[in-house]
Amino acid sequence: METNREFIEQRMRDLQSSIIAELELADGDGKFSSDYWSHSEQGGGLTRVLRNARVIEKGGVNFSAVSGKLSPKAARSLEMETETFFATGVSIVMHPSNPHVPIIHMNVRYFEGDDGMYWFGGGIDLTPHYVVEEDAIDFHKKLKAVCDQYESGFYSEFKKWADDYFFITHRNETRGIGGIFFDRLSHKNRSLSKNELAEFVFSVGHSFAPIYVGLMNKYATKAFSANEKKWQLIRRGRYAEFNLAIDRGTRFGLETGGRTESILMSLPAEAHWEYNYSPEKNSLEERTLSFLKKGINWVDYSVNEDR
Amino acid sequence: METNREFIEQRMRDLQSSIIAELELADGDGKFSSDYWSHSEQGGGLTRVLRNARVIEKGGVNFSAVSGKLSPKAARSLEMETETFFATGVSIVMHPSNPHVPIIHMNVRYFEGDDGMYWFGGGIDLTPHYVVEEDAIDFHKKLKAVCDQYESGFYSEFKKWADDYFFITHRNETRGIGGIFFDRLSHKNRSLSKNELAEFVFSVGHSFAPIYVGLMNKYATKAFSANEKKWQLIRRGRYAEFNLAIDRGTRFGLETGGRTESILMSLPAEAHWEYNYSPEKNSLEERTLSFLKKGINWVDYSVNEDR
Repeated sequence: METNREFIEQRMRDLQSSIIAELELADGDGKFSSDYWSHSEQGGGLTRVLRNARVIEKGGVNFSAVSGKLSPKAARSLEMETETFFATGVSIVMHPSNPHVPIIHMNVRYFEGDDGMYWFGGGIDLTPHYVVEEDAIDFHKKLKAVCDQYESGFYSEFKKWADDYFFITHRNETRGIGGIFFDRLSHKNRSLSKNELAEFVFSVGHSFAPIYVGLMNKYATKAFSANEKKWQLIRRGRYAEFNLAIDRGTRFGLETGGRTESILMSLPAEAHWEYNYSPEKNSLEERTLSFLKKGINWVDYSVNEDR
Repeated sequence: METNREFIEQRMRDLQSSIIAELELADGDGKFSSDYWSHSEQGGGLTRVLRNARVIEKGGVNFSAVSGKLSPKAARSLEMETETFFATGVSIVMHPSNPHVPIIHMNVRYFEGDDGMYWFGGGIDLTPHYVVEEDAIDFHKKLKAVCDQYESGFYSEFKKWADDYFFITHRNETRGIGGIFFDRLSHKNRSLSKNELAEFVFSVGHSFAPIYVGLMNKYATKAFSANEKKWQLIRRGRYAEFNLAIDRGTRFGLETGGRTESILMSLPAEAHWEYNYSPEKNSLEERTLSFLKKGINWVDYSVNEDR
């Protein structure tokens, strides 16, 4: 079967459906709302949002497929010369109510321009309010296992890419413990065919639900204190800072007339900013901050309780 | 007396002190904290923050005076060619706890480059959670009165500038009811001398406290409902969107290594984002949205109760 735009778009739709089915099952309470929307040029999307469910306080699983002509501004932003484009993808952010359950983000996308030009992009990254080393190791090992099925160098390259991308410069901290991030993958710059790249990207997409459901199940009923809730809201403030001030995907979407409510579903229901906040010495919060830096080799990390 | 950098810097310090004295008196409860900080190159600032006081939930009155060499990035961002610079100013944002008291922002700044190049900038703008037309009219009339003392065209020009600057493109709404905004004022592009421009800028600065104290006194004890509090938190989300995603001042500060906690004191203590929220038909919230647009001539506005 040919990996053409119709085929990829259908697989994106299927990916959205299957992830929603798995998340609804794991949450056990809420149902995702559905909003179909149309792009001003051609195409549109289906935004699905879950609110105030058992585990998830606010989360979105968005599908979109749009085509049209790139504005000069959008073309500059994408650093590419193409007149017409087609883009389809699935984008996810989950904000749980329990601070022991991490925030997670996943995105897979396909872009097609003129003359057969195309690329795939995407990634998964985890933002625990409290970093648990065993979970971070497990998360990265699972991502590495997905990558290793396709190309031995993918994980280390894309792990570094995530470290660099999900970095809040003005805080000098990473958004979370990273994951993988990749962009502009095509057979022209990789040793894989277009078919193989598509398989890789959808493998990443389908790895999302089992990874996150595992974390939901592990922590959704863990007791938490008022202080831990407060810390969660401050960490969500950092998440909002990254998404609004830094994230290129958000900026591109907002500046090119994307559907604002679909793009900003990534923002938490509630976030706090406290002037000059810093956690107590030797607290779990301070310990978490010590992990929010680039270059931690989680796959080979050995847990040292004396750290 | 010559309007040199030392003189302007001292007047900025004095402005900060006098505003804080007036705000503390009006609030009647809290005291501003004081944080001195140093810029990596030369100079520094004094960040003063009020938290959980009677009227003000979170507010900052910042003074800074820094000098050094402009990085190529900063020079591009300022669209100017100068090697060394000196900049001083006062910047204020107040987030009250009562949704009937508006959010307010004020900034005055002075920039000096090589060869006697300099400019003044600044402005005041108001972001009511609930627009009250009489207050909007009064606010704009007071700003016009300040402007009219110096130049008959200032108010209408700077009012339009504020409408254009404080605009959240992706929401298609203004941040609030505007006010005045001005930048790059010098004797070279205005009919006023440097002394007169300085007087104008400090008149704007000193108009802040009486304007805002009036609104604090008028609304701080007005009863509010849970629904009105919720609306306030959603409006604060919009404020955070503007400041993080759009505001050039914030971006310039964060990208050029300003003190993050001083810059982001502008963010509210607590903000909410609700997916696809829209107020009820014919509610006061919907009515407020109808005023969040450019080009309302508040000075000549006549209140029509049937609106």
